[in-house]
Amino acid sequence: MRILGLDPGLGTTGWGLIEAEGNRLKHLANGQLKTDAKEALPRRLSHLASMIDALVADHEPAAAAAEEIFVNKNPQSTLKLAQARGAILLSVARHGIDVGEYAPRLVKKAVVGTGTADKKQVHAMVSRLLPGVKIAGPDASDALAVAITHAHHMASSRLR
Amino acid sequence: MRILGLDPGLGTTGWGLIEAEGNRLKHLANGQLKTDAKEALPRRLSHLASMIDALVADHEPAAAAAEEIFVNKNPQSTLKLAQARGAILLSVARHGIDVGEYAPRLVKKAVVGTGTADKKQVHAMVSRLLPGVKIAGPDASDALAVAITHAHHMASSRLR
Repeated sequence: MRILGLDPGLGTTGWGLIEAEGNRLKHLANGQLKTDAKEALPRRLSHLASMIDALVADHEPAAAAAEEIFVNKNPQSTLKLAQARGAILLSVARHGIDVGEYAPRLVKKAVVGTGTADKKQVHAMVSRLLPGVKIAGPDASDALAVAITHAHHMASSRLR
Repeated sequence: MRILGLDPGLGTTGWGLIEAEGNRLKHLANGQLKTDAKEALPRRLSHLASMIDALVADHEPAAAAAEEIFVNKNPQSTLKLAQARGAILLSVARHGIDVGEYAPRLVKKAVVGTGTADKKQVHAMVSRLLPGVKIAGPDASDALAVAITHAHHMASSRLR
C-alpha cells in the first residue's frame, strides 16, 4: 500500500511516499513543494493544490496522512499554515483518498519512541527506517515520519 | 459586475451575491452553506468545496471577496476557521476568480461607517443598501457586507 505523508506549509510543504506491506516499509519518493511569497494567498493555495494534484496523479497513493496543527507563538504563521493545510486536505480528499491526522507528539513517539524528540532525531530515525533514502529537507523528513506513523497505525489496526 | 462575498466558516459559510454598476448595487442571492460536524475534516472541506463550485457554476461571479481572519480567544475554532477559509479561497481561485481580502474592521467601516459596528448594525445597513433583500442569517449578512465593501473598493479604485 502506497502512503503519502504530508507536512503542510504555505511556503514549503514536505511530502514523502512510502510503500507499506504489513510492518515492512520501503521509501519511494520525497520532496518539498514551494509557493512564491510574493503572490496573493488564493493564488499560492491554487498553485499548491496543482502540485498536490500532480503528486497524486504521478504516484497514485492509496492513503495519505498529515500532522495536526496547533496555534503557536506566532499567530500570523499559524493562520497561513492552517489555510495551506485546509487547501492540502481538500486537494487530497477530492481524489477520494482518506487523510489520517496525527498529533506531532504521536508522530515523534511512533518514529523515535518519544514524543519530545527533536527534528534531528526524527531525521535520523526516518533514515534508519527507510534504508537508502535521500531526504530533500526537514519538511520532507517530517512528511516521511507521518507516512511511517500512518503505516504503523494501519498495521496495528489490522492486528487488533 | 457580479461579486460573490464570502464569510468563511467550517460549520457555516455565509455567501452573498450582488450586482455592482459603479456605485449602484443590486442584491441577487444569498445563503449559508453548512457541513456536518460528525464528518472528518478532509470530508467536510471537500463538501464545502463542492458547494462553492456549485455556487460559482450557478451564478458565474466575476469577482469575489472574503474577510481576513485573526487568531481569537478560542485557538481550536480559529484553526477550523482558517482551514475552511483556505479550502474556500482555493475553490474560488481555481475557477480563475480573484478574491479580494478585507479586514473585518474595514468591512464594518465601509458598510456602517465605523470599524466597531456590531452584527445588528451591519445587518441593518446591508438591508438598507440592498432594498428588498431577505437575508438568510448572520453569516449571509456578513458575506453581503464584504461583497458591498469589494464593490466600493473597486468603484473608488476606478475613480483614482
